[in-house]
Amino acid sequence: MTTEVYLFDEAADKNLTKMELGGKGYGLAEMTKLGLPVPAGIVITTGMCNEFFERGKVIWPELKADISAKIEVLQNLVGKKFNDKDNPLLVSVRSGAPMSMPGMMDTVLNLGINDNIVEVLSKKTGDERFAHDTYRRFIQLFGKIVMGVPGEKFDHVLEKYKEESSAKSDIDVNAAGWCEVVKRYKELIKQETGRELPQEPTEQLFMAISAVFSSWWNNRAIEYRKIYKIQDSLGTAVNIVMMVYGNLDDKSGTGVAFTRDPSTGEKKVYGEFLMKAQGEDVVAGIRTPYPVSKMNELVPDAYKQLEQIFGKLETHFRDMQDIEFTVEGGKLYMLQTRNGKRTAAAAIKIAIDMANEKLITPGEAVLRVEPDQVQRLLYKQIDPKFDGESIAKGLPASPGAAYGKVVFTVKEAQEAKQKGDRIILVRPETTPEDIAGIAASDGVLTSRGGMTSHAAVVTRGMGKPCIVGAEAIKIDFDKMEFTAGGKNIKYGEIITVDGGNGLVYPGEVPLVEPKLNTDIITLLGWADKFKRLGIRANADTPTMAAKAVENMADGIGLVRTERMFNAPERLEIIQNMILADSLEERKSFLEKLKPMQKGDFKEMFRIMNDMPMTIRLIDLPLHEFLPKLEEILPQVVELRITGKNNGELAKKERILNKVMQLKEYNPMMGQRGVRLALMYNEIYQMQVGAIFEAAAELMKETGKAPQVEIMISQVAEANELRDAKAIVDAEAERMMKENGMKINYSVGSMIETPRAALTATFMAKYANFFSFGTNDLTQATYAFSRDDVEAKFIPFYIEKKVIASNPFETLDWDGVGRLISIATAEGKKANPKLKVGICGEHGGDPKSIEFFNSAGLDYVSCSPFRVPVARLAAAQAELKKKFHGSSTA
Amino acid sequence: MTTEVYLFDEAADKNLTKMELGGKGYGLAEMTKLGLPVPAGIVITTGMCNEFFERGKVIWPELKADISAKIEVLQNLVGKKFNDKDNPLLVSVRSGAPMSMPGMMDTVLNLGINDNIVEVLSKKTGDERFAHDTYRRFIQLFGKIVMGVPGEKFDHVLEKYKEESSAKSDIDVNAAGWCEVVKRYKELIKQETGRELPQEPTEQLFMAISAVFSSWWNNRAIEYRKIYKIQDSLGTAVNIVMMVYGNLDDKSGTGVAFTRDPSTGEKKVYGEFLMKAQGEDVVAGIRTPYPVSKMNELVPDAYKQLEQIFGKLETHFRDMQDIEFTVEGGKLYMLQTRNGKRTAAAAIKIAIDMANEKLITPGEAVLRVEPDQVQRLLYKQIDPKFDGESIAKGLPASPGAAYGKVVFTVKEAQEAKQKGDRIILVRPETTPEDIAGIAASDGVLTSRGGMTSHAAVVTRGMGKPCIVGAEAIKIDFDKMEFTAGGKNIKYGEIITVDGGNGLVYPGEVPLVEPKLNTDIITLLGWADKFKRLGIRANADTPTMAAKAVENMADGIGLVRTERMFNAPERLEIIQNMILADSLEERKSFLEKLKPMQKGDFKEMFRIMNDMPMTIRLIDLPLHEFLPKLEEILPQVVELRITGKNNGELAKKERILNKVMQLKEYNPMMGQRGVRLALMYNEIYQMQVGAIFEAAAELMKETGKAPQVEIMISQVAEANELRDAKAIVDAEAERMMKENGMKINYSVGSMIETPRAALTATFMAKYANFFSFGTNDLTQATYAFSRDDVEAKFIPFYIEKKVIASNPFETLDWDGVGRLISIATAEGKKANPKLKVGICGEHGGDPKSIEFFNSAGLDYVSCSPFRVPVARLAAAQAELKKKFHGSSTA
Repeated sequence: MTTEVYLFDEAADKNLTKMELGGKGYGLAEMTKLGLPVPAGIVITTGMCNEFFERGKVIWPELKADISAKIEVLQNLVGKKFNDKDNPLLVSVRSGAPMSMPGMMDTVLNLGINDNIVEVLSKKTGDERFAHDTYRRFIQLFGKIVMGVPGEKFDHVLEKYKEESSAKSDIDVNAAGWCEVVKRYKELIKQETGRELPQEPTEQLFMAISAVFSSWWNNRAIEYRKIYKIQDSLGTAVNIVMMVYGNLDDKSGTGVAFTRDPSTGEKKVYGEFLMKAQGEDVVAGIRTPYPVSKMNELVPDAYKQLEQIFGKLETHFRDMQDIEFTVEGGKLYMLQTRNGKRTAAAAIKIAIDMANEKLITPGEAVLRVEPDQVQRLLYKQIDPKFDGESIAKGLPASPGAAYGKVVFTVKEAQEAKQKGDRIILVRPETTPEDIAGIAASDGVLTSRGGMTSHAAVVTRGMGKPCIVGAEAIKIDFDKMEFTAGGKNIKYGEIITVDGGNGLVYPGEVPLVEPKLNTDIITLLGWADKFKRLGIRANADTPTMAAKAVENMADGIGLVRTERMFNAPERLEIIQNMILADSLEERKSFLEKLKPMQKGDFKEMFRIMNDMPMTIRLIDLPLHEFLPKLEEILPQVVELRITGKNNGELAKKERILNKVMQLKEYNPMMGQRGVRLALMYNEIYQMQVGAIFEAAAELMKETGKAPQVEIMISQVAEANELRDAKAIVDAEAERMMKENGMKINYSVGSMIETPRAALTATFMAKYANFFSFGTNDLTQATYAFSRDDVEAKFIPFYIEKKVIASNPFETLDWDGVGRLISIATAEGKKANPKLKVGICGEHGGDPKSIEFFNSAGLDYVSCSPFRVPVARLAAAQAELKKKFHGSSTA
Repeated sequence: MTTEVYLFDEAADKNLTKMELGGKGYGLAEMTKLGLPVPAGIVITTGMCNEFFERGKVIWPELKADISAKIEVLQNLVGKKFNDKDNPLLVSVRSGAPMSMPGMMDTVLNLGINDNIVEVLSKKTGDERFAHDTYRRFIQLFGKIVMGVPGEKFDHVLEKYKEESSAKSDIDVNAAGWCEVVKRYKELIKQETGRELPQEPTEQLFMAISAVFSSWWNNRAIEYRKIYKIQDSLGTAVNIVMMVYGNLDDKSGTGVAFTRDPSTGEKKVYGEFLMKAQGEDVVAGIRTPYPVSKMNELVPDAYKQLEQIFGKLETHFRDMQDIEFTVEGGKLYMLQTRNGKRTAAAAIKIAIDMANEKLITPGEAVLRVEPDQVQRLLYKQIDPKFDGESIAKGLPASPGAAYGKVVFTVKEAQEAKQKGDRIILVRPETTPEDIAGIAASDGVLTSRGGMTSHAAVVTRGMGKPCIVGAEAIKIDFDKMEFTAGGKNIKYGEIITVDGGNGLVYPGEVPLVEPKLNTDIITLLGWADKFKRLGIRANADTPTMAAKAVENMADGIGLVRTERMFNAPERLEIIQNMILADSLEERKSFLEKLKPMQKGDFKEMFRIMNDMPMTIRLIDLPLHEFLPKLEEILPQVVELRITGKNNGELAKKERILNKVMQLKEYNPMMGQRGVRLALMYNEIYQMQVGAIFEAAAELMKETGKAPQVEIMISQVAEANELRDAKAIVDAEAERMMKENGMKINYSVGSMIETPRAALTATFMAKYANFFSFGTNDLTQATYAFSRDDVEAKFIPFYIEKKVIASNPFETLDWDGVGRLISIATAEGKKANPKLKVGICGEHGGDPKSIEFFNSAGLDYVSCSPFRVPVARLAAAQAELKKKFHGSSTA
């Protein structure tokens, strides 16, 4: 392997990608090519990071030589040299992964400084305090990151010195003070590591490069990658960049900015600027910064240049940019550019605006919005009718509203999450160490920090409500409580946060589902033009059907008729039906259920108008409608022992007997769906009767014909479908004759057993449509019982990297997906008119939708709330296929 | 469609097959071609039968015309004519399906006789009594079969007449008597049907043809086809054959014979002959016949001709023949020839003898024996050490021994079978109506009939022990008992029958598994030369391993280590292991199990010598080793209510808690096998430790290296295998280092989840071998829980023709088989050294073995007792493939 070390302009000339250069290196290289003011520097590619680990965390001779050679070129380029008495070169050594992992890996600033150079710097800038402050900053970072001295030990040293010298803040420490701190820092390092702080810049450099590479595998980074599903194999690049100083003088400063508002998407400069500060000061959220527009007063030339650069960057990168910059003595330096993270609302607005500005095409706009971002906008908001009093107000860092029990630590958050609680994590501020706690929480509230602070950035990425800088909040960790607005809120009490306006409320505030806004409607309108898949909704009630129509579903893909039995008055009837001793008795109870089912069907047909509605005939095993063995058995034993109530005992014994009789070892693979119906035809007959009565009545009333699709479940063998269809057809025929009308209906099959998929050629003979039941199909294909494995060992498997994700959330392409591909292709070959859809939970999952699109399905059906997501995902799937070709083998 | 009606010689000239001509028609046509004395006749093909049903059970004009034309030719050929005053033609109209269905369908004899012709016949034969007897026989059959008058009504008429005329038997009825009976029969028909007996022979003929066709769908025939899995679509041919009379005079008679002994296979004429009788008299088993050799005295010319014909038939048909013949006035007529049914022992002997005689090749000999026939010989016999007293002796009609509860009717047999009882059906004699009862029974005992009686033929076909003609048995249906040898045996009492020697014993007699005999060893030796598949055995104990070696298995394909835990002293340890609260405690119990497992492994390695032994690490879910919820819960409830024993309560509560904790909704798809082991590595570690200690000790003692194959179960994802293999390899490495020796071992995977099969390409990376667990694979592919569906609705599904057979007995080629084909092909492609086998119960099923052979597997593993069957089936599979090409798509 040849080593890969480039100057930024070399990297840009070679058209190296973000995968090779990392996000930071790529941005710097591109900006260099655009002629923007970028400090000169070198990038070591991500490939070198992987090789570094393969070689046992060693910088091997060839790499060392190449880096040294490029440093030589760099020195000539900028006219500065390491250790030079006149023009000493100081550099930053920065990590930069292909995917943004803010704050997860390490960076060393001011590298190249030492006992001599600090003096040179002092002389050259004429600012002794700046020079010694710079040296102590270097030692602090280098000591912690490269030499492994715990960060808080440096803090203690500094705190102690400030105490001794009665300095209230860093500002009060003078040059001599920093000099003293430097001395103590160096002693601390000696004491902690047994080594002196290296004085030789190249030694510092290679140690720092090793440390940055190594930080790819620190715990924070691993945790972050797990949460964001970033591949471990990507590696980080290392950027060695000439230092510029935002803390040099009064014409210096540093800032972060977005080319558009990352919260709303509005087209305006948005960002924060700190005078006389280095970049870390902004990101850490410790000092409260100015809005970036304030630069127009403070450093007007730099600001004007910056405004122009914004335009150039957007034109070049064709996306909203998140940049970091430094002004050194009034001169602007661009330190970073990358596509900016944004709220869901902003993502949509920016995509639409950019398409309208002709920066991107409508297709690209559709691809720019993550389907989950649309989902986020569709989730809970505080009920507008609510007018309770808030107890605090902070910055609205990440939109959406949530309530939950208050927790104060990562550990508490994780424990409460495991118990299934809803949680609001309350912290003074968050750091990368808190990632797992944020992930476990439903919302985050901090008392410090700004809109670009850690908590704000991370929660926006996760789409969780977040309020930052709510200064009214005073946390008392010992008492496990916080006070705000005169109230004490204890650990475990419920609060509600509204990330949309920054208000905090005590207790649980009523939340509402939001409506689609104009931007979403525009975007989904575009999406609908690109998508090939139909999007239907799963709906068991008229309310859900109405939601489906509101979200512009193309029909209902799944009505679970057994869910209709769950209402209490119906449950009793169905229990009696199961307990019945004769066919006649059973039929009499079915007759009671029939008008109830008919009523539901009729109302839903009415709502769906002329859109298709797929009604699945009863699927669950009968025993699910009876009490559990562990409930009824102790009751019977007790009645037997006490001998008190013989009537009650007889009744309970009858139920117990039925429970035992219907008990199955593996009910998921027992007598369900079609297996039940072929033995007890009367259940299907009742249901088909109810469907056709409903349809006939509606036709008589409205003159409109509903599109009836009747679906059979649990089929494993084509002959099951043959016989079930015969029952349905006979009853349908009878009902149509009785009503003297013809009703359009079709009969199809769930494909939820592997065998149904494998024998699709035969199944297609008796089916007008297939609908994949991916939940059951996943269960059977893995032989995973979802109820048993999902909590028990799927998380363990993900942890151990046995599986990459939960196959019940994201479709398993290799196994379950293969069955779906087989069944779709062979089913359609055998019956070219066959309609093929999917109605499992995967129907609303974007990655799964991408698969379904490639596999040639006709539609997906998902929760009515997920329909907008599915519409967008379906469009993206089709657009990606066009751009990249089919994504399945 | 053209009609298909042929004279026998025409049919032979056209080379029509048995499928077209039916078995009887084919035999007659072939014999006609061979120049043997066959009465002239016509055959209507099986295709016409199907068309007859398609046209609504009508003989359509074209068919009628063609039959009439062929009758014309026949009349000219034999010089006899229907209704002719000088030479009247009488014919039999016989059914004849492609597969032998003895006695299942109908036949009409003596057709063409009427009020006039009976007189002609009387004059022509000079035997008035014969003529009228012939007429009454015709009326009796025609009345019953064609006109639908219940048979017993004719019996009543005859009985009544005999009573009136004081005739003891038919022999005592004279010509006038038969004349009177004819009159009364005709009256009976008039009275029962409102129609006269048709007098016109062609009218009789077409009515009879319709009746014979129709009998294809009578209940007996349907039942028989279901039991023998004969396709309903085959249809029956109809044979119209000139009558010859075995009851004409004292030089006449009728017989059935086999060209070799169907019971032992010995090469000698074997059969029975009745003087002055028609064929039905022999088959019905009412009169006790002579052995066929007696003909040498009675009709010596016919006998000599018959002996020559035997040779010709065997040379032509290259198989043992079962023939029917009639001697009319000393002249021999061949009425039927077909491949003879035979006992398993005879089948093997005949195949070997014929190969030695060069009549057939050894390959054909191997194909001649049904694998199940070998099995039969390998099943139970009475323990030779047993010397109890028998209570009756009959003819040894079908070999093997069985015990069971005595039942007397079909209904009782079926009911007892459903309860899972072992049953012996005891009847005076059996008729085709008894088929379902015989099928339900473990053995049959009759008090009447001979070696070719119904019971004898049917049980030999089914391979069930049967004793016939045990005349000492007196059945009293009212008392529901029988007496024999001075004992009363009541309904439900147990008896034992030995079909090998005809002895009946009271009570349950000890049975033993038989050893392989010389013939079987010869045949299996030939089989081994043809087979491609290796045959291994599933063995969990040293005893089973020894049986595997005895039956010449090529190794052990499955050791179920969890079965080793089932011994009571071990069960307690493993229960404690499960109840353990800490890893340490758990390990301490595992350490106790280890020497026990080691001992078993060592003994089995010793027995298996250098043959491979596949040890499957623990598979069952832990909760299977704890009490059932319905056992422990009532105990706890009772102890709680009575408040008696607090120590006991605490103990039981601990168990109950664990039962509840380990309870799974669908344990078959829960935390089993590798899923358990990846979380509790210590279980695999203990087992691998025990395996390697056993192997090391044995190597030290004997110097011989066992072939260790370690198998992981329940794998659904290649990474599970990766991680499990890592545990195994680490422990193996440690053990080998500890013992200072290298032990050959390989690691492989069960393929028992659909996903494992679908992702075989990835699985093969970590596997030295695959072994299909077809039981679990079938469960998951169908989503059928065997425990739940096999009794509950698989029989119902077979009944309703939803599925053709139980997929847990015979592999489902379309679904499960497809997964096996995919996994085998793709696994071997990814890893060319991959060994592929199967260790589910299907490994011993011949039809499944045929599939496994075609799918390219390397070996099958089955019960040690099934190994001989599997060896034969594997040879046949390979031979069939060579003859017919691959049998899978």
